[in-house]
Amino acid sequence: MSLAPLPPSALSFLDFYLPPKSHPNLFTTLTYAASLDSRISLGPGLRTTLSGPESKTMTHYLRSHHDAILVGAGTFVADNPGLNCQYPPADTKNALECSPLPVVLDPGFGIEITQQSKVLLNAAQGIGKYPVVLVSEDRYLAFPDKISKLKLLGVRVLTIHNLSSQTSRSKSWKLIQNTLQHELNVKSVMVEGGAEVINDLLLASHNEDATVNSVIITIAPVYLGKGGVQVAPSLPLDRLTNTKWESFGRDVVMVSGVR
Amino acid sequence: MSLAPLPPSALSFLDFYLPPKSHPNLFTTLTYAASLDSRISLGPGLRTTLSGPESKTMTHYLRSHHDAILVGAGTFVADNPGLNCQYPPADTKNALECSPLPVVLDPGFGIEITQQSKVLLNAAQGIGKYPVVLVSEDRYLAFPDKISKLKLLGVRVLTIHNLSSQTSRSKSWKLIQNTLQHELNVKSVMVEGGAEVINDLLLASHNEDATVNSVIITIAPVYLGKGGVQVAPSLPLDRLTNTKWESFGRDVVMVSGVR
Ligand SMILES: NC(=O)c1ccc[n+]([C@@H]2O[C@H](COP(=O)([O-])OP(=O)(O)OC[C@H]3O[C@@H](n4cnc5c(N)ncnc54)[C@H](OP(=O)(O)O)[C@@H]3O)[C@@H](O)[C@H]2O)c1
Ligand SMILES: NC(=O)c1ccc[n+]([C@@H]2O[C@H](COP(=O)([O-])OP(=O)(O)OC[C@H]3O[C@@H](n4cnc5c(N)ncnc54)[C@H](OP(=O)(O)O)[C@@H]3O)[C@@H](O)[C@H]2O)c1
Repeated sequence: MSLAPLPPSALSFLDFYLPPKSHPNLFTTLTYAASLDSRISLGPGLRTTLSGPESKTMTHYLRSHHDAILVGAGTFVADNPGLNCQYPPADTKNALECSPLPVVLDPGFGIEITQQSKVLLNAAQGIGKYPVVLVSEDRYLAFPDKISKLKLLGVRVLTIHNLSSQTSRSKSWKLIQNTLQHELNVKSVMVEGGAEVINDLLLASHNEDATVNSVIITIAPVYLGKGGVQVAPSLPLDRLTNTKWESFGRDVVMVSGVR
Repeated sequence: MSLAPLPPSALSFLDFYLPPKSHPNLFTTLTYAASLDSRISLGPGLRTTLSGPESKTMTHYLRSHHDAILVGAGTFVADNPGLNCQYPPADTKNALECSPLPVVLDPGFGIEITQQSKVLLNAAQGIGKYPVVLVSEDRYLAFPDKISKLKLLGVRVLTIHNLSSQTSRSKSWKLIQNTLQHELNVKSVMVEGGAEVINDLLLASHNEDATVNSVIITIAPVYLGKGGVQVAPSLPLDRLTNTKWESFGRDVVMVSGVR
């Protein structure tokens, strides 16, 4: 698949919101594509194409600028996502080099990763990295067979103590960011979804349990309707700063910092 | 109150989506301001300022281009809206001339309009028109005193047969548009909210029970959160066409036709 190229105006529009070359702490970008009614899919478990070709290319451009890409278990199951970069920048040799480390947040250790999972097909073809799964420690200990099977497939499993029984989902984001930074040596991560992950991270940012540095949202001019999976944090949030908007085909993209 | 002027680029951006000078049928514009999570207020009955100064001016500019402005009973109660035009175009003499006819959709005939209601204060000051209330015929007959009291205040009450007991809210939009066009001689109406009105009109447009000609949405870069009043139609809708986006201060405005 070849992607539509990005115009120079799009690149300069995004530039200020990308992780800087050197950054003392983990740089976190929250990014997703939504409908006018803030739905990211037509319903639970459904993969829904929202972005047009231009904003799709943008997503892959963003991936090339982050060390890691994180999605929730729900997204892994619904979308079977590839999580690689198909738009290598001019200064990178290939798709593998520009691809981020895929990280799947699966506290319950419930997802099935097989040789046929897109993320592993990409890794086997050398056009994407092998993924890491973050699970809660208690669940990890309950499934020794699963761990050795995943190891054979090239999948690393990392545990976080009390990830799923954290009283607050907001608080668990502190643990997740710590693991990314200190155990995986990741300097920048883009969090791509799904709705639970996004809503919790927005709340964590509001509560100052986690730091979000950039928010990049694509909005497509359609309504997915009440039945769709929605992005809406549990509390209001008015901390976006330096917001800019740019048309990408029929979509609009918002870039923003967080106060 | 004086409003920030609109730059010429904003005027040309909007131009194509305004009611044309002559139009055989009623021209309907659906317009509202929402947060990133498609909320139009922080909660039921709460007035919430979302638009920045630039997009606020735009709303008044739009009002000057429509014969009528329609809001639901919920909005009338929550916002006590003025529903006039505070941004007279260069070729209009004054605020009264450029102000649309306020129409309040109140099937249950439940709202209280008093001399202190903003819409009547504006009318008394000559900076806005006297409003019309659309009620269901059965409710109208139940409140003869209310009608004569309203008449004294300058408020007209129009009835629509079976407005509230329509099996479908979508179908009632046909009756509402008929009344506007044939009984009120309105050639263009902008529907400004609230959520119930917008969601029903989007559904009616999807079902082809009503015609929506333009959709103009302001999106402010804030989240109002799950507790907010949301715009999300009961079914998906992918009929927007010729969509364009333009920054208005920190907000973005989408203009669109409907297929
Ligand atoms: N349009 C887009 O940009 C986009 C992007 C991605 C996904 N999507 C769509 O989103 C939908 C999936 O979203 P979703 O909400 O169902 O699932 P999700 O957010 O991908 O994953 C939810 C799971 O992640 C774990 N999790 C989330 N937040 C956590 C936290 N703070 N701490 C610990 N664990 C956490 C939970 O696992 P446990 O239950 O095991 O605790 C939860 O079940 C799909 O339909 C997909 O197509 C759209
Ligand atoms: N941000 C913005 O642009 C904006 C603009 C306007 C309002 N708002 C906010 O929106 C909120 C109010 O919204 P809301 O949903 O509560 O109320 P609403 O939509 O203003 O009014 C709802 C009422 O209108 C009547 N109605 C609606 N659709 C109808 C249809 N198809 N046929 C017949 N009657 C219909 C119903 O009356 P009956 O129940 O009597 O049948 C219903 O109770 C407020 O918080 C306000 O601040 C925001």
